[in-house]
Amino acid sequence: MLAPNKTTKVYDQVIEQIKSKIKSGEIKKGDRLPSEREMAESIGVSRTSVREAIRALEVVGLVESKQGAGNYIKTNFDNSLFEPLSVMFMLQESSVKEMYDLRETLELQCAKLSAENIEDNELALLTAIVDRMYIAGSEEESLELDIKFHYLIAKASRNVLLINVLDVISQLMDEFIQKSRMQILHEGNTKESLLEIHENLLRALKCRDESKVCNAMKEHFNLIRKSYGYDN
Amino acid sequence: MLAPNKTTKVYDQVIEQIKSKIKSGEIKKGDRLPSEREMAESIGVSRTSVREAIRALEVVGLVESKQGAGNYIKTNFDNSLFEPLSVMFMLQESSVKEMYDLRETLELQCAKLSAENIEDNELALLTAIVDRMYIAGSEEESLELDIKFHYLIAKASRNVLLINVLDVISQLMDEFIQKSRMQILHEGNTKESLLEIHENLLRALKCRDESKVCNAMKEHFNLIRKSYGYDN
Repeated sequence: MLAPNKTTKVYDQVIEQIKSKIKSGEIKKGDRLPSEREMAESIGVSRTSVREAIRALEVVGLVESKQGAGNYIKTNFDNSLFEPLSVMFMLQESSVKEMYDLRETLELQCAKLSAENIEDNELALLTAIVDRMYIAGSEEESLELDIKFHYLIAKASRNVLLINVLDVISQLMDEFIQKSRMQILHEGNTKESLLEIHENLLRALKCRDESKVCNAMKEHFNLIRKSYGYDN
Repeated sequence: MLAPNKTTKVYDQVIEQIKSKIKSGEIKKGDRLPSEREMAESIGVSRTSVREAIRALEVVGLVESKQGAGNYIKTNFDNSLFEPLSVMFMLQESSVKEMYDLRETLELQCAKLSAENIEDNELALLTAIVDRMYIAGSEEESLELDIKFHYLIAKASRNVLLINVLDVISQLMDEFIQKSRMQILHEGNTKESLLEIHENLLRALKCRDESKVCNAMKEHFNLIRKSYGYDN
């Protein structure tokens, strides 16, 4: 392993300053950052270094630069241009089993919390998704509904940290859901058994019964686990 | 909510190309990236745009630029200069309860997996940490040992995805561990009860018994939960 590179680069100073202002609460979501010139002067670095730092924060999905209006801290982080975690995962050549273990633990916690926090309109949305699953014409459409279903449950957890973690690995998650569906169907399960599992989850959520919801989610993951042969 | 900014910027093209090469496996950990001139020519953008993209990847902790030798994909991602997730969490003003829920689920899964995968030298390290906990002279030292103890268990899970997720939120986690310790001690628990919990976890890991390890970790989180009054 290489020793971490500790040489501080000039743009780091800019990032560190923005970070510490966020930490102290001085900079909040939606706030406009000082102009590049102002930041350069106050930190004592070149405007090029400020621009480099801002660009990096843009790539990370933290800052949004609005033409002619300056740089703003984003108000939502759903669409990070770059998913550092997803890319790191790809580089580590992580196994499907690792992905399974991570997804299982995050989604079980989401399920547990959503039993308590889900709102009526979210239940209505989930019901609509399941209804559409029954008449979906293609696997592509079914997959899209499946993904929506899971993200909605995550959102209903009301835990923004959990939602953020799922968001930053969403690209991987989507691929995992796709692979799992194929694996489940390939192992001789029918589309109906997949539907039933989502139907069960929805029913449990409607009761807002934590243990029922957790059991339904566990049942879901048991199906995935079995189809991958992780039970052996 | 703002609509996501979909205008593609020039440096995005560079990032997208690097990302897709990582995805296809053409670029691997430790690989040297083509020179900035080569990339500019092959993608058909300016060298400034290439440099902006590379800087951003450096900030994210994916690329390391070695003076005079070019830009390399990092081999380990332990020391991301910038923790996008931690900063996003700070901006969302997440509650301690949210942090608790995320940490509980990640660490329980780590505990479960480490029961199966922990190696002898890791058990020896954990034993040494617990021994040092008994003679630690200050809360500062105890905290440092506590944090090390938990990261070692995470590492013993052998799930790089889980480890990565914990890494990118390590700044938050460390603060959470610090706060939790203070909260636990403040609620009238003694340093001995904290020690006992870590001792129990270690003993269970030595047996490599999954259910014992999970129970010991649950006991640990019960103590935290109670000290925060989440049981009410």
